[in-house]
Amino acid sequence: MLPSTDSLVSLALQEDLAFGDLTSTAIFPPGHRSTARIVARQPLVVCGLEVAAQVFERVDAKLVVKPLLQDGKPAKAGEVLMQVSGATRSLLAAERTALNFLQRLCGIATHAQRYADVVKVQGSAVRIADTRKTTPGWRALEKYAVRCGGCHNHRFSLGEHVMIKDNHVAAAGSIRKAVAAAREAAPHLSRIEVEADTLEQVSAAVAAGADVILLDNMQPAQIKAAIKRIAGKALVEISGGVNLQNLAKYLLPGVDVISIGALTHSAPAADLSMEMRAGSSAR
Amino acid sequence: MLPSTDSLVSLALQEDLAFGDLTSTAIFPPGHRSTARIVARQPLVVCGLEVAAQVFERVDAKLVVKPLLQDGKPAKAGEVLMQVSGATRSLLAAERTALNFLQRLCGIATHAQRYADVVKVQGSAVRIADTRKTTPGWRALEKYAVRCGGCHNHRFSLGEHVMIKDNHVAAAGSIRKAVAAAREAAPHLSRIEVEADTLEQVSAAVAAGADVILLDNMQPAQIKAAIKRIAGKALVEISGGVNLQNLAKYLLPGVDVISIGALTHSAPAADLSMEMRAGSSAR
Amino acid sequence: MLPSTDSLVSLALQEDLAFGDLTSTAIFPPGHRSTARIVARQPLVVCGLEVAAQVFERVDAKLVVKPLLQDGKPAKAGEVLMQVSGATRSLLAAERTALNFLQRLCGIATHAQRYADVVKVQGSAVRIADTRKTTPGWRALEKYAVRCGGCHNHRFSLGEHVMIKDNHVAAAGSIRKAVAAAREAAPHLSRIEVEADTLEQVSAAVAAGADVILLDNMQPAQIKAAIKRIAGKALVEISGGVNLQNLAKYLLPGVDVISIGALTHSAPAADLSMEMRAGSSAR
Amino acid sequence: MLPSTDSLVSLALQEDLAFGDLTSTAIFPPGHRSTARIVARQPLVVCGLEVAAQVFERVDAKLVVKPLLQDGKPAKAGEVLMQVSGATRSLLAAERTALNFLQRLCGIATHAQRYADVVKVQGSAVRIADTRKTTPGWRALEKYAVRCGGCHNHRFSLGEHVMIKDNHVAAAGSIRKAVAAAREAAPHLSRIEVEADTLEQVSAAVAAGADVILLDNMQPAQIKAAIKRIAGKALVEISGGVNLQNLAKYLLPGVDVISIGALTHSAPAADLSMEMRAGSSAR
Amino acid sequence: MLPSTDSLVSLALQEDLAFGDLTSTAIFPPGHRSTARIVARQPLVVCGLEVAAQVFERVDAKLVVKPLLQDGKPAKAGEVLMQVSGATRSLLAAERTALNFLQRLCGIATHAQRYADVVKVQGSAVRIADTRKTTPGWRALEKYAVRCGGCHNHRFSLGEHVMIKDNHVAAAGSIRKAVAAAREAAPHLSRIEVEADTLEQVSAAVAAGADVILLDNMQPAQIKAAIKRIAGKALVEISGGVNLQNLAKYLLPGVDVISIGALTHSAPAADLSMEMRAGSSAR
Amino acid sequence: MLPSTDSLVSLALQEDLAFGDLTSTAIFPPGHRSTARIVARQPLVVCGLEVAAQVFERVDAKLVVKPLLQDGKPAKAGEVLMQVSGATRSLLAAERTALNFLQRLCGIATHAQRYADVVKVQGSAVRIADTRKTTPGWRALEKYAVRCGGCHNHRFSLGEHVMIKDNHVAAAGSIRKAVAAAREAAPHLSRIEVEADTLEQVSAAVAAGADVILLDNMQPAQIKAAIKRIAGKALVEISGGVNLQNLAKYLLPGVDVISIGALTHSAPAADLSMEMRAGSSAR
Repeated sequence: MLPSTDSLVSLALQEDLAFGDLTSTAIFPPGHRSTARIVARQPLVVCGLEVAAQVFERVDAKLVVKPLLQDGKPAKAGEVLMQVSGATRSLLAAERTALNFLQRLCGIATHAQRYADVVKVQGSAVRIADTRKTTPGWRALEKYAVRCGGCHNHRFSLGEHVMIKDNHVAAAGSIRKAVAAAREAAPHLSRIEVEADTLEQVSAAVAAGADVILLDNMQPAQIKAAIKRIAGKALVEISGGVNLQNLAKYLLPGVDVISIGALTHSAPAADLSMEMRAGSSAR
Repeated sequence: MLPSTDSLVSLALQEDLAFGDLTSTAIFPPGHRSTARIVARQPLVVCGLEVAAQVFERVDAKLVVKPLLQDGKPAKAGEVLMQVSGATRSLLAAERTALNFLQRLCGIATHAQRYADVVKVQGSAVRIADTRKTTPGWRALEKYAVRCGGCHNHRFSLGEHVMIKDNHVAAAGSIRKAVAAAREAAPHLSRIEVEADTLEQVSAAVAAGADVILLDNMQPAQIKAAIKRIAGKALVEISGGVNLQNLAKYLLPGVDVISIGALTHSAPAADLSMEMRAGSSAR
Repeated sequence: MLPSTDSLVSLALQEDLAFGDLTSTAIFPPGHRSTARIVARQPLVVCGLEVAAQVFERVDAKLVVKPLLQDGKPAKAGEVLMQVSGATRSLLAAERTALNFLQRLCGIATHAQRYADVVKVQGSAVRIADTRKTTPGWRALEKYAVRCGGCHNHRFSLGEHVMIKDNHVAAAGSIRKAVAAAREAAPHLSRIEVEADTLEQVSAAVAAGADVILLDNMQPAQIKAAIKRIAGKALVEISGGVNLQNLAKYLLPGVDVISIGALTHSAPAADLSMEMRAGSSAR
Repeated sequence: MLPSTDSLVSLALQEDLAFGDLTSTAIFPPGHRSTARIVARQPLVVCGLEVAAQVFERVDAKLVVKPLLQDGKPAKAGEVLMQVSGATRSLLAAERTALNFLQRLCGIATHAQRYADVVKVQGSAVRIADTRKTTPGWRALEKYAVRCGGCHNHRFSLGEHVMIKDNHVAAAGSIRKAVAAAREAAPHLSRIEVEADTLEQVSAAVAAGADVILLDNMQPAQIKAAIKRIAGKALVEISGGVNLQNLAKYLLPGVDVISIGALTHSAPAADLSMEMRAGSSAR
Repeated sequence: MLPSTDSLVSLALQEDLAFGDLTSTAIFPPGHRSTARIVARQPLVVCGLEVAAQVFERVDAKLVVKPLLQDGKPAKAGEVLMQVSGATRSLLAAERTALNFLQRLCGIATHAQRYADVVKVQGSAVRIADTRKTTPGWRALEKYAVRCGGCHNHRFSLGEHVMIKDNHVAAAGSIRKAVAAAREAAPHLSRIEVEADTLEQVSAAVAAGADVILLDNMQPAQIKAAIKRIAGKALVEISGGVNLQNLAKYLLPGVDVISIGALTHSAPAADLSMEMRAGSSAR
Repeated sequence: MLPSTDSLVSLALQEDLAFGDLTSTAIFPPGHRSTARIVARQPLVVCGLEVAAQVFERVDAKLVVKPLLQDGKPAKAGEVLMQVSGATRSLLAAERTALNFLQRLCGIATHAQRYADVVKVQGSAVRIADTRKTTPGWRALEKYAVRCGGCHNHRFSLGEHVMIKDNHVAAAGSIRKAVAAAREAAPHLSRIEVEADTLEQVSAAVAAGADVILLDNMQPAQIKAAIKRIAGKALVEISGGVNLQNLAKYLLPGVDVISIGALTHSAPAADLSMEMRAGSSAR
């Protein structure tokens, strides 16, 4: 349903199938039919069934695609995510591209869920959010996978919200001036976030009326001090140096959001495969 | 220079900049100029300078891009990969997209080099090769990164070479028939690879005249037995279950290629950042 | 600099020049050169010089484009906005497309300024904002034109902020539940706006913690009552039935934003022309 | 059915839905279904039902679209143009884009009909024609809307017919030479039109064998004199300064065509809305 | 300069270079430079220098392209059409695609000239015109090549002019009704052509006021009779069964145009090659 | 099914139908239905039914397309390849584009079969292969047509296999060094071909371990000498100067492949037409 996915699927099919599938065309007659099952080979969070279906349908509009699970739900090792039947040539032509989409999206969703689980176990209400450190061309899909894994999205693009960093402050003259300039220029629905490296900057951001304050690369003790200064006048986001191992100690009272680039840029691929059975149950 | 990169850069700019950069437009006047440096924050293998340059130039054709290192070369933590000067608004608009390309490509190249280094240390001549398990839309770029890291490429697409698997054998009736059908249909420059799970299949593949035999998920002992049967009549590729930790024990005499999907699908992102200095040296 | 403009310029050149320019090719030899001036034929607010320049450069990369005014500035009737020199064939091939972009963008900027001027004359701090009622394909450009005319932008797309209307409330069960569901799902930087048709809905929206309340199609008296209920706990936006003639009476204390679809969908085209002089000064 | 519409619809969906619809996704479960009706809120000439249907179908191929009126027919205020049923999320995601197409196309068709009505009332056979002053990217659609409103099209692009203006005459040396050069170069199906500002030019155009003569910015008296000189040897087109108010006095005997840029570039948007009812009759 | 050429060049580079040039990358270091010359290996009419230049520049913007001849001019066997210098890798990557464009365009131009020469030798003023039987994707380029060869273009697309055939007449009820319907609907600049298979149809077409009459598949004697009936009241086009060998006998007085599909669909490729010399003069 | 065909069909529809079909829209009411038959007007090898079907379906998704023959099979003059029923306007709008695809693809397949027939008549096992001398944008389709005609494909692109020519040898220093460099860089599935103009080069290529040796522009006597030197250590390909007339004398023992550019670049178009019958049998 996301319009940008169309282009990415086109690129993906183009790069694998520009000249067809030499092997399957040589061996399977056009009328040979099979049923394929996409199977999880590890426990994972399902994500990407729609785009995988789109890959199969773009390769051959006559393939019959039947999702058996739902995005955002867990799959056990061995569980079947979706079934596709039709021409064997088409199934094999689409196989790798469909799996490549799924392994990345399930990988991110599964990775995100690990973070979300830590938060849940700790009984915290902190949001774990992604960043704009996504794979070029995959922004919307990867952010969707983060949501499937139970985490949250930060802004989608540079055009929605304001994030004021060092360079902006230097150019504007002060945090106050930067916030004022951004508030004047931005749509009234856009929140303004200020990145702070020091407690002085935190105080200045509060005074400037920032809606969100990003505590960048601060240690827990410094974070606590910052939260005291903010005193509920802005949302508190922390970022930098947080990982699965040390996440628990950042789940401090007063923290609203922890944003983590690794959610999208370093999630390992999930392990999935496609199993085929000649003949076709689906008619 | 790769034509498909154009489309991916377009998608990437579109997703981050469809409505411009709210923050920088609000704060920097159009005439404000800076110099930016892309800096490695970890030791890494450089990869992607050209596509990063393309990102900057597509955002603003007047930016002056100066690469300081070369793809395929190592960078130390703190080393500057490239420098870009021009309008501050343009530099900040391109920053995240350029870094997102670099962090993935340097990440893969750096990851690949770890495998290549094990081979070198062991004094082996085995090739480490990638697979088609690449990020959709990124096939050409990721395979280029693998080469930058000192590893090799397997086939690029389904249209170039023949890879015969279980399903093909079942449909053809035998390995011999499958190889014959493929040989007849494929271009005379295409090699034919047969996947074998058992020693019987290995023997059948040799007898069928396969150019390359893929020993799928075999343990070292079985691999040795297979190599004996192949006896130099085909190239020997192994795949499945090989990782950085156990790679050394697969570097057996007679093995030509080890292919590893994780080279591309699970390399962690490299850590890079862009540092800015107001004003522009390049004028 | 906006990535989506590229595609629109491509469509525009394609539709006028798919088979070249029959007339000019028949009459002007390729070496014939001219200088063209884009002239305002009415007082207007300049907008679109960059996209017009892009049209000329895409038709012929050797044309020399020189902007003489700046987007967002006024031009008097007869004033020259930009000058372009080079091959006469190229200038004439680009003429209509460049003017078609400019007449629409200057038209919107000029129209917007009339609204902004009423606000200024009244000494009000109310923002006049656009809506998503833009020409398909032109969202980013038209919203830019609104800013050039001194007005503000509402949200750019459905993916940035939350706007809760009747249907959402009905499905969620109450305004409170709708706001809560949206708050949970939306990025922490997204503000939540609730559309209210009655004072009861206004009170419910305040109680639900809406960030912005849209008073839809209310008359001034009702608006005043609503503002009293809101009491500064949310931004106040009004929409519906406001036009240049009656704008002044909606500039009430407590109103933050007035959004007006006609800013973009019904602005008359500005009158501009291109004047040519054979020969080329720019050599 | 027009191939260029595809690209425009893609751009339009991309700009509104690149990251989905935050609000509806948060509130409506995927299975929630509704029926939507597109309603005229003013008397209008229908135009664009096919492209609106395409918007809905591109957002969700399972939506059931049922047109209730036909392009080119009148709709009264309150009349339903089309009905769409299916997933509520999809209906709301497509709503604004579909309406944005319809409001512009119905707007132009409705505007064009006002001109056509004046001609009819006067009992004239003059054609009212559009120009190439269309919205970039919208050429084919807007010219279609003009036809729906009962007016006619001028040429579609620079590549079809010949239109000789001042610059061409100056470069060719004379109207006669310009017409001869164009006649020689143009396809034999292309007519040649000459723009004339003076009666001398009119005579020269007739002598040169122009198929159509454009009387540019002439007053009725001068037009009558020109028509006398043309004496049926060419079609007579007039352009410049004609509007709804003064149209009647230009409907002179001997005039074949009056072309008016405002038909496309300054038609106000038609007022339409989409009304929703939860549940779906179409099942 | 033609906008559609961009897309075709993209497709062409994509299909040959999606994964780069294996051979040249393996052997030439990036800094290796050469000068290449595109040489005619047969006498030909030059056509396509601009699109060939575009191919080189798209592969590598730093290549220096120098055309040495001009489109539409003759080249002798051995003559150099253009010279390109720069990185050897880039020259070889672009070579085949550039030659593939040139061999087709020069082939058509050269083929067309043979027809034009027969006309010239016979002292006839008949136009030889192409048809819409062009290679999909190549319409504008192939029609340009026809002009370079001294022949003329028929209509470019279905959207410009009217061509009434049997089916239209059957549906309309008569030639007269078909012409009237088309005249009413078509732009006033569009000419109306009627296809006639018999002399009765010729008479009907004249009576209906057709601008051009196409004598389809008639023999010279029948053509003469038709011309007599037309008596100058319409342009006379003949089509069907005309080839280089029998062209002369169709060059009858009263014939205006002969259209020939083979001009574009069956022209043999021209023979050209690219010769390289290591090192680069252009530095 | 080939992804690149999509883009070519888009370009083709765009160039013929950007502004619709003036004639048919004027004459046929939208509800008028017909059945069309694509008929061979000469004996030919069928090729392109799928892409022709795609053209009809892209113009109007409701057309019912029924293929009556199969790609790769012969059609006699007068035989019907496919039948399409539905709206007459849509059938006529798609007609020329569908035929233009078919006439080129059937033309190439038919042409290729003439070569394949010579080989068969001579009882030879030599493969006739195409080259990369294809129409830009048509690589995959034209190579498919070659296979339909019973011939074989050479490599598809520069990125799959290695072809070492004079320039590479000069830069590498020797054939041996060039082969070694290519072997090291290329994927292990890629074969390496060396072009040889002399017997010395043939010997050097054999010694260097080339997989395939291309004997370029050699006469039969020289070819025999070369084959003796190669002695089965490499595949033997010959190219240059071979045509239908002299093919038989190149079918020498020891020759594996003969590659011929004219297969794709100079095949004459096949003659096909579309016949219409008002009304529609297919419901």
